[in-house]
Amino acid sequence: MKAVILLSGGLDSSTVLAIAKNKNFDCYALTVNYGQRHTIEIERAEKIAEISGVKQHKVVNLDMRWIGGSALTSDIPVPKDREEDDSIPITYVPARNTILLSLTLGWAEALGAHDIFIGVNAVDYSGYPDCRPEFIKSFENTANLATREGVEGRKFKIQAPLIKMSKAEIIKTGIDLGVDYSLTISCYDPDEKGKACGECDACKLRKEGFLHAKITDPTIYI
Amino acid sequence: MKAVILLSGGLDSSTVLAIAKNKNFDCYALTVNYGQRHTIEIERAEKIAEISGVKQHKVVNLDMRWIGGSALTSDIPVPKDREEDDSIPITYVPARNTILLSLTLGWAEALGAHDIFIGVNAVDYSGYPDCRPEFIKSFENTANLATREGVEGRKFKIQAPLIKMSKAEIIKTGIDLGVDYSLTISCYDPDEKGKACGECDACKLRKEGFLHAKITDPTIYI
Repeated sequence: MKAVILLSGGLDSSTVLAIAKNKNFDCYALTVNYGQRHTIEIERAEKIAEISGVKQHKVVNLDMRWIGGSALTSDIPVPKDREEDDSIPITYVPARNTILLSLTLGWAEALGAHDIFIGVNAVDYSGYPDCRPEFIKSFENTANLATREGVEGRKFKIQAPLIKMSKAEIIKTGIDLGVDYSLTISCYDPDEKGKACGECDACKLRKEGFLHAKITDPTIYI
Repeated sequence: MKAVILLSGGLDSSTVLAIAKNKNFDCYALTVNYGQRHTIEIERAEKIAEISGVKQHKVVNLDMRWIGGSALTSDIPVPKDREEDDSIPITYVPARNTILLSLTLGWAEALGAHDIFIGVNAVDYSGYPDCRPEFIKSFENTANLATREGVEGRKFKIQAPLIKMSKAEIIKTGIDLGVDYSLTISCYDPDEKGKACGECDACKLRKEGFLHAKITDPTIYI
């Protein structure tokens, strides 16, 4: 059976790819180059796809910078040492996961794949609305109304295996499945060689994850 | 109040733009260049946006040809004089409206617009699943779970004012609102000057629409 996996080159999506592989899916990886600050993430995604033995890896160019309104795709500075609160941070990209899942859905339908894997997480979720279970469930419903496959009864399933896991649990799962986390990049603001800033929300979550998992953090910080 | 309108340069979306303008929205038009067979559609969309006095018109490049599986974005020939039946035709592009609405949603959120207009039609809908009311309703629900605006209670509304109209009703509505249909292109397979083939599903629906509306068809056929 075929599955399409959204692969950013980060810790979470690389773990999800390993999970899908472990479930014996034929894996098709999709990476969207949406105008991230550094293309090093794309290079890492290519490397991870290659060593994971995916059937096909597509890198799609979709510049999201024209959308505006996010520190990840514009000139707004990425906040460092942000205090934790309940607000949605400036790194939120409007409708990002809806856009990414839509593209994945299109490819999945053309491939004849009915399982779509995404590495969203609602525990350490940084406050993004499109990482919550109710969003994933609703997108799945929409997908099955939107497509020939869904309408004809061959339903799509949006699989978000990390959604209720802590970062430490994700890391332990990935280590058990042989993920090489030194290749993955989580940082919102890495340098051109992929070294992590160590201070943004994503770096802090990642650091704490390795700490709690009692696994040596292979990340190279600036 | 701001609204974002998906504008393809076709008859339906041009009518929708006129409807949104008539409702006194400040109109922002979005055209997606997804690798259609002819870029004449993009040129027409630009012309229509300009004469409609939109606040801003964005043309976004998102090649959908890599998705595969459709006559509109690949080398599969567009069928001519197809017999009418209940099947979904080969011109169906997997997940197209989900992708288009997702992009629109992202821009709408960044702009502070909460009304999104799309020219889908479920009467003369050519059999596409993503033109049905249940899809539109489900996408709206997903949009309000996916976004900061939705989560914080400033809900998005997906407006599909043509969804239950016949082609003739759409044309009569547009004529009343001053739409110049000679600028619009419906044909799936126009020549490089924008002349319509007259034989594809879209041309047949359009022809019949003008006939039933008792309005002279300004379309130039090959």
